[in-house]
Amino acid sequence: MLVRVASAACLLLSANAFAQNDGLISEESAATARELMERGLDSDIGYEVVRSLTTEVGPRLAGSEQEARARDWAVQMFTELGFENVRVEPFDMPYWNRGEIDLRIVEPFPQNLFATALGGSAATPQNGLEREIAFFDSFEDLRDAPDDGSLQDHIVYVNDRMISVQTGAGYGPANRKRQFAWLEAEARGAAGVIIRSVGTDSHRFPHTGMMSTPSARSVSVGSHSQIVIDYLESEHPDYETSNVRSSIPAVAVSAPDADQIERIHALGETLTVELSAVAGWRGVRQSGNVIAEIPGRELPDEIVLIGAHLDSWDEATGAVDDGAGVGIVTGAAQLIGQLPRAPRRTIRVVLFGAEEVGLLGAFAYARQNASDVGNIILASESDFGAGPVWSLTSGTSDEGTLFLDEVQSIIAPLGIIRGDRANNGGGPDIIPLAMQGVPVFRLTQDGTDYFDLHHTPDDTFDKIDPDDFAQNVAAWAAVVWLAADSDVEFRMQDE
Amino acid sequence: MLVRVASAACLLLSANAFAQNDGLISEESAATARELMERGLDSDIGYEVVRSLTTEVGPRLAGSEQEARARDWAVQMFTELGFENVRVEPFDMPYWNRGEIDLRIVEPFPQNLFATALGGSAATPQNGLEREIAFFDSFEDLRDAPDDGSLQDHIVYVNDRMISVQTGAGYGPANRKRQFAWLEAEARGAAGVIIRSVGTDSHRFPHTGMMSTPSARSVSVGSHSQIVIDYLESEHPDYETSNVRSSIPAVAVSAPDADQIERIHALGETLTVELSAVAGWRGVRQSGNVIAEIPGRELPDEIVLIGAHLDSWDEATGAVDDGAGVGIVTGAAQLIGQLPRAPRRTIRVVLFGAEEVGLLGAFAYARQNASDVGNIILASESDFGAGPVWSLTSGTSDEGTLFLDEVQSIIAPLGIIRGDRANNGGGPDIIPLAMQGVPVFRLTQDGTDYFDLHHTPDDTFDKIDPDDFAQNVAAWAAVVWLAADSDVEFRMQDE
Repeated sequence: MLVRVASAACLLLSANAFAQNDGLISEESAATARELMERGLDSDIGYEVVRSLTTEVGPRLAGSEQEARARDWAVQMFTELGFENVRVEPFDMPYWNRGEIDLRIVEPFPQNLFATALGGSAATPQNGLEREIAFFDSFEDLRDAPDDGSLQDHIVYVNDRMISVQTGAGYGPANRKRQFAWLEAEARGAAGVIIRSVGTDSHRFPHTGMMSTPSARSVSVGSHSQIVIDYLESEHPDYETSNVRSSIPAVAVSAPDADQIERIHALGETLTVELSAVAGWRGVRQSGNVIAEIPGRELPDEIVLIGAHLDSWDEATGAVDDGAGVGIVTGAAQLIGQLPRAPRRTIRVVLFGAEEVGLLGAFAYARQNASDVGNIILASESDFGAGPVWSLTSGTSDEGTLFLDEVQSIIAPLGIIRGDRANNGGGPDIIPLAMQGVPVFRLTQDGTDYFDLHHTPDDTFDKIDPDDFAQNVAAWAAVVWLAADSDVEFRMQDE
Repeated sequence: MLVRVASAACLLLSANAFAQNDGLISEESAATARELMERGLDSDIGYEVVRSLTTEVGPRLAGSEQEARARDWAVQMFTELGFENVRVEPFDMPYWNRGEIDLRIVEPFPQNLFATALGGSAATPQNGLEREIAFFDSFEDLRDAPDDGSLQDHIVYVNDRMISVQTGAGYGPANRKRQFAWLEAEARGAAGVIIRSVGTDSHRFPHTGMMSTPSARSVSVGSHSQIVIDYLESEHPDYETSNVRSSIPAVAVSAPDADQIERIHALGETLTVELSAVAGWRGVRQSGNVIAEIPGRELPDEIVLIGAHLDSWDEATGAVDDGAGVGIVTGAAQLIGQLPRAPRRTIRVVLFGAEEVGLLGAFAYARQNASDVGNIILASESDFGAGPVWSLTSGTSDEGTLFLDEVQSIIAPLGIIRGDRANNGGGPDIIPLAMQGVPVFRLTQDGTDYFDLHHTPDDTFDKIDPDDFAQNVAAWAAVVWLAADSDVEFRMQDE
């Protein structure tokens, strides 16, 4: 990345010579964007924000004391960096935690496996479960399996692999087993479920992540978990969709451990495993969204909302997921806040709580700020690690699309092309806003390696490349500035 | 590696055209060596041996039931592959095991750390230890610290880093803290010791490994732990050298956790940690060496001894340490055993037990076979992973050196140069034999990445590159064949 950033910096120096101002972006505003890009490539403020969060708070599971500490940290951080209107918007949420887990092969070749509970997993009975494995090559094989009682007294194992794709497009297909294997296993009377981790690495780290439990979302937002409800209605019409929680333990094993299960299965051996887990739901706790602003100089009621999520899974310090996003959007906004002249519109930074466990902060934000949602003229989240940005996508009005075409030409020296001009959601925590018609953009990052670390204990600060990180800050600072300093109508008229 | 192996195979096909036979190696023997190299590049027998060991036995801690299963596995494997004189030579050993460990930062920023006990570590008191950290940048800083009582009621932390070197030369300097920090800490009244893992990766795996406890070796072999005794005599002349064991817990943290400790220390904060460990010595258990032979056709009493170690640490399946060595020497010997004509001398394969805990199998072998040691005309061990061989080194008579110069010219197409012609020990388990004058060689592997995995839970079968592995088998088959099929005197006359 060093080479690209270095050449980008050189291009920036001469960029004014080539600037074409076709009217939607003023020359003054464009010049400021270029200045912000140069400062972004040089600034370490955002990077130091991630260092501070991952060091001084560490892991911050949604609803935990550590997440509460993260909110205190964020309030102090925003205040010290000169943001205005710094506030916390708390909300209640159902609390799940992991606790200890033990998984070992009992027969035919006794050995321990590296496993972790999936979010929403139930505990095993106190003395654990010892069961034969029912091996499925894929989630589809499990879904299509007959309910003939053959899974009674078994633990289901689902083996399919995730592929590494720059866009992260391998995640959706691979993630179906994490989301729904428990439902299919439980419906067939299985005692538990084990999946090959949803990840692209070959290290001995299991990947956690939430099972799709409508209850996790419905407590705070009613029935927003549409994907789960749709699935249940089409596949399991007899389920109660109002408060479905897994009654069986569901765990992921690391890729090398999944390979081990696969090799033993390939020998034609029957595997028996012993599983002991204490994971479970623990009542209601508090989470919260932390909000900070740079008030607009002319149109303060119009808001460019940029976000990231403050919570992380509990086994790592959440550096790439989503400490990086916190640092990128904060670092970019801070650079804009340092300018002698504020942008015309308000920039609102939202650090969402409880993203990992079902976008709870995002839905709480949309609910708690319902009267204000119409004032959000553009929104985006950074939540895909710290790899370099390579594409600007957007879902806005036609005028907004043309404007963002121009924006892309300004950030092109950072190595960023123009991507899709159709709504792609703006990031996980933006979904509830986008569902209400809020225009969105994304600065799409290279996620080739993202799922090596995603939801593992290995998601730590050392994994962030400072140069790639700085390129993100530079891009965000420019795009956010240009949108906030404009009066372009990104919202669609018919919404 | 594919490219190199492919080009090596092409070279082999035409190698006869360039072969120079200057007398020590017969043309017939050289032709057989070349044939073995081609077969080695194509054979998957050795690779499948590693797959079988790591899958069907898994982890195999010295003295454990799993190590006993590994001996049964080895006997069956050697027998099925057609080896002769397959036997186990058992020996008693002191047994240490790890058990659970918990390490967390209590102040200033509460969070869990990923740690593992070092081999030989004592347990903490049952309720754990909560102590301030005494931070040392390096082992030397600790060693040179005054004994002024300032470490009383502290847990010592030693931070220095290992560098990655192709030869593995970074291990010795970095390993001093693993070997001796407990001694220095204990001597100054500290309650425990934590080290940055001895490793070159940046993953969340702590690296275990034996502390230097003379007792571990002295039980079976008297006082062979000369390095420890030398150190004690020069630095701590008042120590009882006959049975020194750590009375304090000693643990390693992963590199990212060490970074975390370092960052918090750099903020000027006092760290308090809570450590709970149950590791300790558990009496006497049995280990054993497994031996198999290809009897020589003319000089059966003269032995070319090749080895690897059968035990592994308990947290992984020991694929690169030392399943790879087991597969490489077995695969090479099996290829020789398949030839229509046996070599002149006997090839003896020794899979040593209890290497990790102090070369106990190696010392037991030398003791139990004392009358036979003089018949070993050349010895070597493969115990440095599965990276490609790049150098042939040796420590033999002058005639042996000239012979091995010729051998190198035959294996050169595999990408192997001639290295040092002075005794470099032949591999860890060969040390006791080399100390008695047994001539040695090594096929030096590329260890650039070896210490990424070494002694971590991540040492699993998927980490072995089949092409690199095959190059090892090819090189071993050729060298061992040529030495065993010759009547060259490798032994030095004055020994």
